Amino acid sequence: MKLAVIGAGAVGRSVVELAGEYGHEVVAAADSSTAVVADGTDGRASGVDPDAVVARKAERGIVGDAEPADALAADYDVLVEATPTTLGDAEPGFSHVTTALERDRHAVLANKGPVAERFGDLRAAVDDSEGDIRFEATVGGAIPAVSTVEDIEPGHVTAVRGVLNGTANFILTRMAAEGLDYDHVLAEAQDLGVAEADPSFDVDGTDAALKCVILANVLSFGAADDPADAREFSLADADVEGIRDVPGSALRLAAEDGRTVRLIGEATGETVRVAPRLVPENGTLAVSGTQNIVQIETSHAGRLNISGRGAGGPETASAVLGDVGRLE
Amino acid sequence: MKLAVIGAGAVGRSVVELAGEYGHEVVAAADSSTAVVADGTDGRASGVDPDAVVARKAERGIVGDAEPADALAADYDVLVEATPTTLGDAEPGFSHVTTALERDRHAVLANKGPVAERFGDLRAAVDDSEGDIRFEATVGGAIPAVSTVEDIEPGHVTAVRGVLNGTANFILTRMAAEGLDYDHVLAEAQDLGVAEADPSFDVDGTDAALKCVILANVLSFGAADDPADAREFSLADADVEGIRDVPGSALRLAAEDGRTVRLIGEATGETVRVAPRLVPENGTLAVSGTQNIVQIETSHAGRLNISGRGAGGPETASAVLGDVGRLE
Repeated sequence: MKLAVIGAGAVGRSVVELAGEYGHEVVAAADSSTAVVADGTDGRASGVDPDAVVARKAERGIVGDAEPADALAADYDVLVEATPTTLGDAEPGFSHVTTALERDRHAVLANKGPVAERFGDLRAAVDDSEGDIRFEATVGGAIPAVSTVEDIEPGHVTAVRGVLNGTANFILTRMAAEGLDYDHVLAEAQDLGVAEADPSFDVDGTDAALKCVILANVLSFGAADDPADAREFSLADADVEGIRDVPGSALRLAAEDGRTVRLIGEATGETVRVAPRLVPENGTLAVSGTQNIVQIETSHAGRLNISGRGAGGPETASAVLGDVGRLE
Repeated sequence: MKLAVIGAGAVGRSVVELAGEYGHEVVAAADSSTAVVADGTDGRASGVDPDAVVARKAERGIVGDAEPADALAADYDVLVEATPTTLGDAEPGFSHVTTALERDRHAVLANKGPVAERFGDLRAAVDDSEGDIRFEATVGGAIPAVSTVEDIEPGHVTAVRGVLNGTANFILTRMAAEGLDYDHVLAEAQDLGVAEADPSFDVDGTDAALKCVILANVLSFGAADDPADAREFSLADADVEGIRDVPGSALRLAAEDGRTVRLIGEATGETVRVAPRLVPENGTLAVSGTQNIVQIETSHAGRLNISGRGAGGPETASAVLGDVGRLE
C-alpha cells in the first residue's frame, strides 16, 4: 500500500523506516512545518527514500522542502496519523483523518485524540466514505488490544482492564522495589527519559484514561445493533485518579500483605475508570517497569491476558503497519 | 454466514449452540454416523434448530436422521471441521476440508491433524479454490496465537513458545504444589476428568508438539516469498519429550531455587521442540493449572505474552467463530 505518514516523532519516523519491510511504500511524509512527496527526483522509481527522510529530520529538523499540505494531497492509499495526541477538538489530527476519508482513502491512527474525543464524528465520516479507519496503535503500543476485541466481537466482551501507562507503572514498580517516595522516583524517571519534564499526562492517569475511552467506544459501538444507539465516550466521561498521591508507605503496607499497587484502567460499554489499585504482588496485573498488560473478559472464552511493550517507536509502528495489513 | 458443522464433540456442539450469537446460521451438522440438514421441516425459515441438535445428541447419541455425507453436500458458506485430531493422512478431516475447498467454500478447522500433518497439501488445495481456510482453534483454544502472528506478519516473528497443553500443566502444577509424584497426580487428574484414561497424547507432548508444528508451518509459509521455498513441518519433524519421567524430586529441587518445571513448546521457521524446562516460579511462563500461554518473539515489537484458557468447548468454539468472522 502507498502510505502518507503525517507526524515525524518517534512513531512516524519508525513507520517510515519499517514500511518497506512490510511490503508498503511511503509516498509522502510530513512534520508540523515541512513535507516530502515522492516525485522520482531522489532517483527512486516511486516512493520517498526512507533513510533520507529520517536523516533530514535528524540533521536539519525537517523531513523535506515541501508544504505539509502537499503530503495530505499526495496520492496515497492509507494516511498514517502520527501527530501528537490533542484533546477537545483533537485537531489537527481529526482533520487529517477526515481529509483522507473524504478522498475515499483509509486512515490508520497512532494519535489517540480523534478516537478518544470525537469517535462519533469519526464513525460518521467513515460511513460517508469508501475508506475505513484503524487505530490499534492508540492502545497499548505493541499489544493487539483493539484487534483482539474485534475478533472476539465486542458484544462478547464484558470488560477490558489493565496497566496502560508505562511511565506510571515504572514509577510504582520502583517505589515498591526501592521503598522510595513518588517525588524521588519521578526525578529518577525523568533523568532516565522514562518520564517527561511535565509528567502530568502520564502520572495523572490521562493517557491511560484516553486508552480506556477508546476501548469503551469500541465496545459500545461494536456491540450496538444500531450505531445510533451506541453510547459515545470521551475523556469527560472517565472517572480518573492518578498516582501522585500514592505514598511510599502504602506500597510498603501492600508488600507486607503480598500485594502491590498498579494504576489500573477499566472499560466496559457503560463505564471508564482509572485509579491506583491493590493487586497481588506476583499476579498477572503486576507487570514490571514500562510493560503494559490488557485483560479481556469474555462471555464464552474466560479471561485473556496480553502483555508486552506498551510504547516505543518501532513497537507502536509495528501496530500501525499491522493495521495497514488488515486494510489490504 | 451459513455453517456446516462436522463433528459433534464438545467443540462442535458449542459451535452449534453459539453460532447464532455471532450472527451466523448452522445449516447442517454431522457426527460420525448421522447428520441433520436444514430443510424447514422443524418449523424454522432456515437453519437447523441448535437446541434440538444438541438435545438429540445428548438423549439419543445422534444429531439427526440424515447421512453425514448429506451435511458435506449441504449449501453452506463455511465448513467447520471439528472431528477428532488424527495423525498421518489426517483423515477423515482432511477430505472434509478439501471437499469444501473444491466447492469454493471456506473451511475453519478445530481439528489439528490436517494443518499439522498435511499443511502443504492443504495450501495447494487453497490455491486451487475460491475458498480459504482458518485454524485459530487448533492452537491454544481461546488464545489468538495464529491471528496475532498473522497480524504481526510471520516474517517479523522470530519464535513462538509457550505452555500449550493444559493437562500436562495441571499435573506439573499439582506435583509442585503438593510435592506428589507423577503417577499419583495423574490418577487425580483422571478422576477430575482433566486427563484422559489414556493420557499419552497430552503427557507425552504430542498435543503440544502438533500445536507447535502448526505454528512452525505458519511461520515458514508466511515468511517465504515463494511458498515453494517454504519448509513444511509435520509431527515427524518435532523433537518431543513429555513429562512422564519428571520426578517429584526435580520439582522440589527447582522450588528451592525459586523455579518450577513446565512443558514448553517452541516453534521457529526452522525447528519444533517440546520438552520439560525449568522456568522462574513467578515468571510469565509459569501459568497454573489448565491455563495456556503463548510468547511471541518479534523483530520490532519485543515479546508479546498471551495467556488464557487453552481448551474447552465454548472457549474453542469462540476461536472457531472468530475465524468465521474473519472470513466475512
